[in-house]
Amino acid sequence: MNETIRKQLDHRTIREFTEDPIPKEIVDQLFQVARRTASSTGMQASSIIRVNDPEKKKAIAKVCRQEYVARAPELWIFIVDLYRNSRIAKEKNCFAESIRDMDRFFSGFTDACIMTQNVVNAAESMDLGTNYLGSILNDPMEICKILNLPKLTFPVVGLGIGYPNQKPQIKPKMDMKFRVFEDEYKPLKNYLEAFKDYDQEMHTYYDLRDANRRVDCFTDQVVKGLVNVIPKRQEILNFVIEQGFDLGLYKEEE
Amino acid sequence: MNETIRKQLDHRTIREFTEDPIPKEIVDQLFQVARRTASSTGMQASSIIRVNDPEKKKAIAKVCRQEYVARAPELWIFIVDLYRNSRIAKEKNCFAESIRDMDRFFSGFTDACIMTQNVVNAAESMDLGTNYLGSILNDPMEICKILNLPKLTFPVVGLGIGYPNQKPQIKPKMDMKFRVFEDEYKPLKNYLEAFKDYDQEMHTYYDLRDANRRVDCFTDQVVKGLVNVIPKRQEILNFVIEQGFDLGLYKEEE
Repeated sequence: MNETIRKQLDHRTIREFTEDPIPKEIVDQLFQVARRTASSTGMQASSIIRVNDPEKKKAIAKVCRQEYVARAPELWIFIVDLYRNSRIAKEKNCFAESIRDMDRFFSGFTDACIMTQNVVNAAESMDLGTNYLGSILNDPMEICKILNLPKLTFPVVGLGIGYPNQKPQIKPKMDMKFRVFEDEYKPLKNYLEAFKDYDQEMHTYYDLRDANRRVDCFTDQVVKGLVNVIPKRQEILNFVIEQGFDLGLYKEEE
Repeated sequence: MNETIRKQLDHRTIREFTEDPIPKEIVDQLFQVARRTASSTGMQASSIIRVNDPEKKKAIAKVCRQEYVARAPELWIFIVDLYRNSRIAKEKNCFAESIRDMDRFFSGFTDACIMTQNVVNAAESMDLGTNYLGSILNDPMEICKILNLPKLTFPVVGLGIGYPNQKPQIKPKMDMKFRVFEDEYKPLKNYLEAFKDYDQEMHTYYDLRDANRRVDCFTDQVVKGLVNVIPKRQEILNFVIEQGFDLGLYKEEE
């Protein structure tokens, strides 16, 4: 097994970092890796906001409802960015409405996600730790305000990066026999039965965020997650509209 | 610079592969990397359909409008998968409508994307080549039909994997000074002026798919891309609804 894969199999979320800043040459290497990430039709419709201002970090941590977010030495927000290409098009006298469409939105969203993971792999190869912040979407418009995001951009995911100051257990994941299908999707007859072993294994795991109690088994986590509804997260598409995109619904009726 | 990053900076899309199959133990390693990928709130709401059947490969190539898709030794389709967790919930007598919401859809979509990039980095570390297939979204419902995808799943991106049988040039990418912002988004005054060097550089690049002519400069590509509209791609959200998800619009008016 090569070193890249060894590190990938050793992946864990790191939420607490030492106070050491990441040297500039390493940050630059991460940016170069981000730059070399594949991009849908070459449009490079994603960008990174690197948040240094402690007040902005705190404001983002508040949206995420996680104090540790403000303490990350590097806090990067990855965004869909069609604004840049819209400006390029306009300067070329192209005002096509397609710049707002969901095809371009999802392409930019995909670009931003895969760029983030590419950065994660690069960071971990240099013994940095990372944590994904899907929680920035608890309030997308507040993130847009904090980062002064123009129309035709949208926040996708945040990433905290730094030198690890904790060594969490590796989190148990379900067997890939549940997640890989040959040629077509094949539902199981009985899921609770099939997940018994995994549920058991999850009980061996201690989450450092809540060290005083064992975590729920996986199937209980699924149910608890469904009951835990954050309205603004459910309504994300309303904010996508507010950022200037066209959802492209009802076209067939026109 | 370590080997992981050296390979990441050397990334290029590989569309033509030798006929050598990928040994089972290497495929299994790729699955294990996929398994270890970070996942939103631990829900693991993404899956992989590994397409072996030559007829299904051809049908997918037709959706992608690219013959080479059918020739990839490994063709994997990464999907949003809320079906599995919906079944788990139901067997636990939880019928919460939130399983259909856009929060869970986007979390699954993000999971699928970062899983794909993790696999790409693992594959490239073992000198395999890959190509991303955003083009499966040319017709999402046809992909659902080919792969027998149940409700509450959705195709995100395809990936061709194999041993490279071509050595394309590295594609020029825009400077990260255009894609990284400190603390807030800062629009430029004049984009065409700023992109002159990159436009020039793009002219040094030959795309192997169209070897007889130089590629357009980047700013021309942006305009051509906007004029090139594929209606089903613009209407992707209609198909998200067809797959059983609730877009969560107009909640404020209720």
